[in-house]
Order: sequence, then C-alpha cells, then structure tokens
Amino acid sequence: MNFMPNDNKVVDSKRRSLLKLSGMLMGSAAVATGLSKPAFAVAPTGAATFTPPGADNPIRINFNENALGMSPKAQAAARNAVAKAHRYAKAEITALGQKVAEYHQISPSSILLTAGSSEGIRAAVEAWSPLGSQLVIPELTYGDGEHFANIAGMKVTKVKALANWAFDIAGMKAAVASHSGPSLVYLVNPNNPTGTITPADLIEPWIKSKPANTMFIVDEAYAEFVNDKRFRSVSPLIAQGMDNVILLKTFSKIHAMAGMRVGYAVAHPNAIALLERHVAGEKINFCGVDAALASMNDPAFIAYSKKSNDLSRQILLKALDELQLPYLPSEGNFVFHQLKTPLKDYQQHMADANVLVGRAFPPADNWCRISLGTPQEMQWVADTLRQFRNKGWV
Amino acid sequence: MNFMPNDNKVVDSKRRSLLKLSGMLMGSAAVATGLSKPAFAVAPTGAATFTPPGADNPIRINFNENALGMSPKAQAAARNAVAKAHRYAKAEITALGQKVAEYHQISPSSILLTAGSSEGIRAAVEAWSPLGSQLVIPELTYGDGEHFANIAGMKVTKVKALANWAFDIAGMKAAVASHSGPSLVYLVNPNNPTGTITPADLIEPWIKSKPANTMFIVDEAYAEFVNDKRFRSVSPLIAQGMDNVILLKTFSKIHAMAGMRVGYAVAHPNAIALLERHVAGEKINFCGVDAALASMNDPAFIAYSKKSNDLSRQILLKALDELQLPYLPSEGNFVFHQLKTPLKDYQQHMADANVLVGRAFPPADNWCRISLGTPQEMQWVADTLRQFRNKGWV
Repeated sequence: MNFMPNDNKVVDSKRRSLLKLSGMLMGSAAVATGLSKPAFAVAPTGAATFTPPGADNPIRINFNENALGMSPKAQAAARNAVAKAHRYAKAEITALGQKVAEYHQISPSSILLTAGSSEGIRAAVEAWSPLGSQLVIPELTYGDGEHFANIAGMKVTKVKALANWAFDIAGMKAAVASHSGPSLVYLVNPNNPTGTITPADLIEPWIKSKPANTMFIVDEAYAEFVNDKRFRSVSPLIAQGMDNVILLKTFSKIHAMAGMRVGYAVAHPNAIALLERHVAGEKINFCGVDAALASMNDPAFIAYSKKSNDLSRQILLKALDELQLPYLPSEGNFVFHQLKTPLKDYQQHMADANVLVGRAFPPADNWCRISLGTPQEMQWVADTLRQFRNKGWV
Repeated sequence: MNFMPNDNKVVDSKRRSLLKLSGMLMGSAAVATGLSKPAFAVAPTGAATFTPPGADNPIRINFNENALGMSPKAQAAARNAVAKAHRYAKAEITALGQKVAEYHQISPSSILLTAGSSEGIRAAVEAWSPLGSQLVIPELTYGDGEHFANIAGMKVTKVKALANWAFDIAGMKAAVASHSGPSLVYLVNPNNPTGTITPADLIEPWIKSKPANTMFIVDEAYAEFVNDKRFRSVSPLIAQGMDNVILLKTFSKIHAMAGMRVGYAVAHPNAIALLERHVAGEKINFCGVDAALASMNDPAFIAYSKKSNDLSRQILLKALDELQLPYLPSEGNFVFHQLKTPLKDYQQHMADANVLVGRAFPPADNWCRISLGTPQEMQWVADTLRQFRNKGWV
C-alpha cells in the first residue's frame, strides 16, 4: 500500500487496492463487530454509549473533532481546575511547557504554549510578515495561513496541486526561489482537508538545505493519527538545532480537547521569542492546562484514541469501497471523498439523516470531508451511505 | 469625600479624610466583625473558609485576582462543560456574545469575544498601528498597551502624571494634538496599579470631540468595583454610535474568572471587524464560555463579589490609616499604598509572613499594590501590617 500522494495516478484507480487492504485488515463480513471488540476493550470508563442520531443530537462529523471525548483523567483534571480558576494558571503553565519540552526532547525555551494551534498560525504569520514577504501554500490546505497572510498584507502564492491534491513540493520550492523577498512556507502534514501526508523525504531535505530568507511553518495537528511510515515529524530537526522551522501542535485532535484551546509551537528559542511578541502572554485557560497535563500522562487514552480512529476509518472506507466512491488515503481523523452529485445536495441529504458533514473546500468542488466519529457513528454513517445508493443519491 | 485624582494635593494630606470616611463607614472598633456579618450572609455556598497562610498556601494578593472563587453557578457550568469540550464551543460562543450584547444594550455585531482582555489589548494595538502612529498613555498604567505598541514599532508617548499618579488628560490631549500621524489613546479606568478612577467628565467630552485620526481604547477591567459616582463606563457612548472608542472588558475580576481567559471588546461594528483581523477566530475555551454565561445570570454573586471587595478594602484601609501609611483612593480590587522602606524589603517581610504582594511598578518606586483578598485574608494582612509597625518595618 505505498500510495504516493504526489504520483499522477487517479484516485479512482487506488480504490481497488484500498478495498483489498480494507478487506485484509477487517477480515470478513462481520468486520466492524469483530474489530470493535478489542478497540472497545481498551475504552476508558465513561466513554459515551451510542444513541441513534436525531435532529437534536446529530452525528457531528463536520469539524474534525474527536468524538470520544477527553481522556477521563483529563476530564477529572479539568473539573478539579474549576475551583482554582479564579487564579491565573502560572506554575501549571510552566509545568505544561516543561512536559511538552520533555515530550519533544528539547529545551523549554523552544516551546510556546498557545490557545490552540490557530493562535500559533496567526502569531507566526504576523511575526514573519515583513514588507515584501510572501506566504507559499499548496492550493488546497487549511485556510488560517492564507487568512492571516492576507490581513498582514503578504503576497499569497498558491501552488497548484499534483494529482489527488498532493503537495507539489518542487513547485513550492520554485515559488520560493523565484521570489525576491522573504518567504514563509506553510505545510500542513497530514494535510487538511485532504487527510494525506507529504513524505518526510520531500520535506526534510528542503528544510535542511536552508533556502535563503525562508521560514517553514509545519502544522502537524493530525500527526498522531498517521500510519504511513513515510511521515516523520519535523520535531527532531528542531531538536537538532534547525532554526528555520516552526512546528505547530494542538491538543484538539488526538487528545480530543478542541474546546479547551490548548496548543503550542516548537522552534529554535530565537523563533519562539519572535512568536511570543504576537501572543498575549502564555495565558492559557486553567482547565485546559491541567487537562493537557493529565492527558499527556495518559498514554493509554492516546493509544485508544488512535485505535478507535483506525477502526472508524476502516468502517467508512469499507462503505466507500463498496459504493465505489473514490477517496484519498486518509492519515488523519477525517476522509476526503469524491462525490458524483453536488456537495450541497449530499450535505442536505446527510443533514436530513441527522448527519453533519464537512463544508465546501474550493477548488475541490466535488469532494466532501467526513470527520471520523466513533466506530458506532461511522457504522451508522456507512449504513446511511448504502441507503443513499439505493436512493440514487451517491 | 470628593477626592479629585487629578488635583495637586499630596496623597498624605488625603489620608486623614480617608481615615475619617473609613471611621464613618466602619462604625467603631469592632468594625470588621460588624460589617462582615451581612457580607457573609450573602456568601454563596461553597465559599472557601479561611485557613491561616503557610509557605504552601500563602495569601496571594499579588495579581489582582478575585479570591472568592467563581460563582458556584459558574463553577457548575464549567464542570458540566468538560464533557462537551472535545467539541469546539460554537452555539455557546454565539449565545455568550448575545448575552454580552444585551448587557451593553448594543447589537451583537458590536461585540468580539477575546481570550481575556489581554487579547483585546494586543489586537487593538496591532490593528491601529499603521506607519507613523503613536500610542498615548499615562506614565503609570497597565503595561500591555506599551508592550504591544513597542512590538508594533509604534512611537509610545508617555504623559507625566499629575499628583497622586492621576491621569493628565489635558497633557494627553496635547500629545495627540501635537502628533502629525494617527494616535491610539489607552485609558485604564479604574487604573491599574493605582486603583484610581478618571472622572467621566474628563473622558467623555474628549471622545465626543472626535479628535482627528484618534482611536480610544478604554480598559474597564475593574469598573464593577467602583463606588465613585464620577466614574461612568464608555459603553453608552458606543451604544449611541461613537465609532472612535473600543471598550475592553474581562470576566477575570468581578466574575473571579482570571484563569478562564474570557473577555470581550465593545465597539462600532467597523472597529470590531478590524479587531477581528487580529484574533484567531472567536475560539474561546468551552468551560470559560459556559462559566461566563452562568456568571452573567448570577447577579447575586456579582453583588456579593462587590460587597466582599468593599469590606476587604475597608479592613485594609483601616490598618493603613492607623499606621499612617498613605494610599490612593481605591476604586478597584486592590490598593496602591506608599512605603517608607524599599519595596524589596517590604515584599520580603510579607513573603516571610506568607503573604505575596505586588511587584514593582516603576516609576512609582516607593509604592506597593496590594490586591484585595477575602475579608478574612485582609484582616490577617492588616494584623501583619500592625506587627510590622511594632518591628519598625513600616
């Protein structure tokens, strides 16, 4: 299954291989049931039981949230923090910074806590937006980089994607090389909304070549969900002393803490000092800080979160395979699949079935991003898709 | 007691009048006890009981936090939010924005939620920092405005204070008038660290006169603690359509939610749109959002918070009066008092007594800011001060 996201084969041709993989992994017809047992054997106590969706409790697979809920230990820590939250979190923020630094095997001076990774993106773009600088991004990626670059008055250079929306790294290099001023390169890996990875062998040599006047922002919000061995975090590059790359991380995804707004940047201390100028101090919510600390100390939950996402993905892909709906190889907690009908109709049919799916991601107009809910939710969505086929809607 | 913060009499000469006021308000010798009864009759259930401070649980009166803890209703709401916090708060953020808009009798398009008011200060300074603009601030005020103006490359014009650190509004007007580029005027009212108010009669006519190329940022973090009738919020000016003023508010103080990081800006929709360009979306912590909503629906707690602060202030002022230590008339949840010894020695003596007091606020080198803890804590601090006098330390 060495799908190369930047090869030129069409997505549809990959479908059969994935179907094969899916079949191998999932065994037989009683697939979801069979796999769900080990997955749920490790479910933390308090994991929500499945209720069929209704108008008041739709299946929310539209925002790449982690449907499992926070680690029970993180939840307990957050609840305990409430009685302290009339105080500013200070010692706790220092403790979280140290814990994050240990995790990345780097000095605490290389860490800046942020209110989610969105604050990190804003701060990085603002900090590296001197006169004449450009933001270089792929054609289809997370929108915050472009949003803040436009506000900062930067030139935004979008590099057209290869087949299957793969990043054209060679094209991005050319865009950097041909610009006379400084460049800020924003790479989301795995990418959102495509869910695909860009192999480290394409990224690392570029960063290590230290192109003049160029800073890389690598957003690895979804990295913990990745199975593809060709992905590697840029974290070790920073630990080795590279000062031209900022890694952005969040507790929103694998840690299931989207509403807690905790993220961080990892970078050379000089870059951290520049970033720090564009955030209002390390003033993070007390419940979020204590929950993040507790979640980092709960590797069993992280393993469960990963395993559950793998299972949810397999359930959805099996249905997409059956229905011969093409999709990109997903390495995140969402799947980007192709539609034969307009997205609006598909969204409406899903909404009528109490399932909220992703918004439009132009220019990928006939694609839909489906976030991976719990395995039970994905089984429901898979069955819904099969019913849609019977109705001629997919 | 018409203390004019911008008259020219020395602080020490005011001490006697304040002592007199204090005596009138507090009745007799058994003052604190007498007043504490009604105050604590309205204490919400769950309010912390007093434990004498130790090395592990010092009295924390160094960060202008509200020692009461959040409203029990807000605490319950925050705890309930934890189970939802794997989701982004979306409908809840809209609901809080609407509630805040109702409170200010203004359209929701005039409200921007921020992660505390510090995010509002940063965003406002960044948004109004075009080439050639200056920040006009009083000599002694909250530091975030100057901090972010320096980062944005703005000229910072500090206007020397009048006696008793009062804002020299005439001097600030002159600084605006004599600058050729745009001006951003940052007024904290009541001011931090002085605790004094600037009368509305000095501020409102200036804003209404619409000086060319000038935006006012009025930071009313402590407004709910004010007793002085000469203070008025700028909120009605904005509701009346003034588009040259941004009001910044926080849930950190009267609502006792410092660690929750919830604040907001109130301004003309055009100004809100500009501010919005410098925040990473209205992505506020779920526990904070739900707690803020619950706290706004708990006016009894707000009344209790105000009453408790009044009582704590009286207890501290009584001791300062007895010891003839001059102080400024406090309208916030802290008191700025003058020292006869170096601040470092005073801080050390306090720390040895397990009491953490405010940091240095240059150029007010022989002053100390004491945040108002609970009445019991302030009784302890008052007794500590009296012991210091016996030792010749104050």
